[in-house]
Amino acid sequence: MKISELGGENALIELLGRQYGSREDENLALGIGDDAALIRSGERFLIVTTDLLIENTHFRVDLIEPYLLGWKSVAVNISDIAAMGGTPTHTFISIGLPDIEVAMVEGIYGGIRDICSIFASRISGGDTVGSGGGIVINITQLGTVEPSLATKRSGARPGDVVITTGTLGDSRTGLDLLLEHGLDGARSINNSMVDRHLKPYPRVEQARAAVATGKVSAMMDISDGLATDLPRLCKASGTGAIIYADRLPISEDLAGYAAESGSDAHRLAASGGEDYELLITCANTDFEEVSAAIRNTGVSACIIGEITSRTEIGYVNPGGKVESLPAAWQHF
Amino acid sequence: MKISELGGENALIELLGRQYGSREDENLALGIGDDAALIRSGERFLIVTTDLLIENTHFRVDLIEPYLLGWKSVAVNISDIAAMGGTPTHTFISIGLPDIEVAMVEGIYGGIRDICSIFASRISGGDTVGSGGGIVINITQLGTVEPSLATKRSGARPGDVVITTGTLGDSRTGLDLLLEHGLDGARSINNSMVDRHLKPYPRVEQARAAVATGKVSAMMDISDGLATDLPRLCKASGTGAIIYADRLPISEDLAGYAAESGSDAHRLAASGGEDYELLITCANTDFEEVSAAIRNTGVSACIIGEITSRTEIGYVNPGGKVESLPAAWQHF
Repeated sequence: MKISELGGENALIELLGRQYGSREDENLALGIGDDAALIRSGERFLIVTTDLLIENTHFRVDLIEPYLLGWKSVAVNISDIAAMGGTPTHTFISIGLPDIEVAMVEGIYGGIRDICSIFASRISGGDTVGSGGGIVINITQLGTVEPSLATKRSGARPGDVVITTGTLGDSRTGLDLLLEHGLDGARSINNSMVDRHLKPYPRVEQARAAVATGKVSAMMDISDGLATDLPRLCKASGTGAIIYADRLPISEDLAGYAAESGSDAHRLAASGGEDYELLITCANTDFEEVSAAIRNTGVSACIIGEITSRTEIGYVNPGGKVESLPAAWQHF
Repeated sequence: MKISELGGENALIELLGRQYGSREDENLALGIGDDAALIRSGERFLIVTTDLLIENTHFRVDLIEPYLLGWKSVAVNISDIAAMGGTPTHTFISIGLPDIEVAMVEGIYGGIRDICSIFASRISGGDTVGSGGGIVINITQLGTVEPSLATKRSGARPGDVVITTGTLGDSRTGLDLLLEHGLDGARSINNSMVDRHLKPYPRVEQARAAVATGKVSAMMDISDGLATDLPRLCKASGTGAIIYADRLPISEDLAGYAAESGSDAHRLAASGGEDYELLITCANTDFEEVSAAIRNTGVSACIIGEITSRTEIGYVNPGGKVESLPAAWQHF
């Protein structure tokens, strides 16, 4: 049986996690299945996350500048550290390179260096090897979090509100523009949405502010789109949720693009993908405090729905009808 | 300028380490350039190492069983943990997979599970993704070591003896057999040397025993062959060395193969590659104690040469003439 016959990547991941993952114990506070692993280490938790990016599967060199390829490779990992409520500390870079221009490699490392510098993460090692195929990048990102602030996906309770930061759907739309018009063309049409796709800015400060309130019940980052990631949070928590399309935070850019192109902005926001915003739950009565903490960092936060005890995800469309969540994000 | 024009992988690694590596400080005890990074973490050092393996660059699926591909991917990382004097704790698996048989994926994970179990390392996370090209595996291995036992490459002093564990050259010869005769053919000719190549057994116990004496001045694992790795140790220590060909530990298998095939066993042992034995230095007067500690684990240890103050590596061939070290290992 091939992986595709088993049910693809997600079915395989479930099988591998079940059969080969380690039981959580005194040394492994949280293993496979969340944004990152938590390991007890002195008085704090060590957070470990890793992401593998393969040319022509996860990125195309004609659709991202080398500098932003480096930036984004690290950004998506730092976003996972943020999702646990932590701060990044050390970055390890494994890179497989065909015989490309050294200037391109330096471009990639320039982006890595800058994002590591902004988020105070030290480039501490890695592995640089040749590649007979395309470029391969694996980032392993370490971070740290106080045990009292570590936040998992599994703590949502029925009645909690569902919150997201920033706006959703821009990144996905930026990718659509890139695929249709190429890098220069897409940037000339809407540079801001293209940047949302190519230069995500991890919500470390926002996550830290939110968990510092002590009121967050569950948190994760939205990397594969709300329609994929919310079910994961609900599954981990043993709950369902209901989401209101007309509450999804939509940028002016996306609204303008949707009006012009005749596409459904709410649907783009819900199915989205690579938003790297935070998905947070807390008690309804704590929303003011949590959202104020986030807004104080200069980023918006809004309620998009509610956690329910039924283990289904409902999506109330702009017309008020409940349907299932729009189809999820797929890598190109 | 392409990477090849810059001088290839090694020149690139030097450039990247110099320009983008982090300075060592209170949080990073040892960064880029050793077998692994050391990070202060409570009363111990956290050890982090990572290795990227790309199909048809680092392995060929027709020349290694899936189980041993998994085993070896982790083994080479645990060997780096051993090289620092530490013990492995947690393993993270990033894997990029084309649409292959699920049984093959389970074979790979079976090997990973078994070696992790033997060395008490927990499989704690990773990233499983599709790959449009071949199989890609990146292992990130964590370990831990008491600061007093952490051992770097840089501590060798002139007059120290150079020690290796086990035997050298078997793995390289096993690879030669694989390339010439294929997997089944090579195993039928000399299964033992093929296993030295495909199923390395990291010297964790031996390294721990050696550093526990408190007498080891420098240590690393021999992954790219003595002719490549000894110069690295000497460069880090600011020394040279002289190696005696007739002291290189050669297995009966290798001696027999060399006699039959008319090849030079000493040269195979010196240029070797993927031996995953330990390269250790200590004062001449401490050799008995260090080697006895290693031998107590059931593995041999012998003096193969001496550290010198001149920053050159001399190789005394079996005829007694000094020459430069035999050409180093290259990946196929």
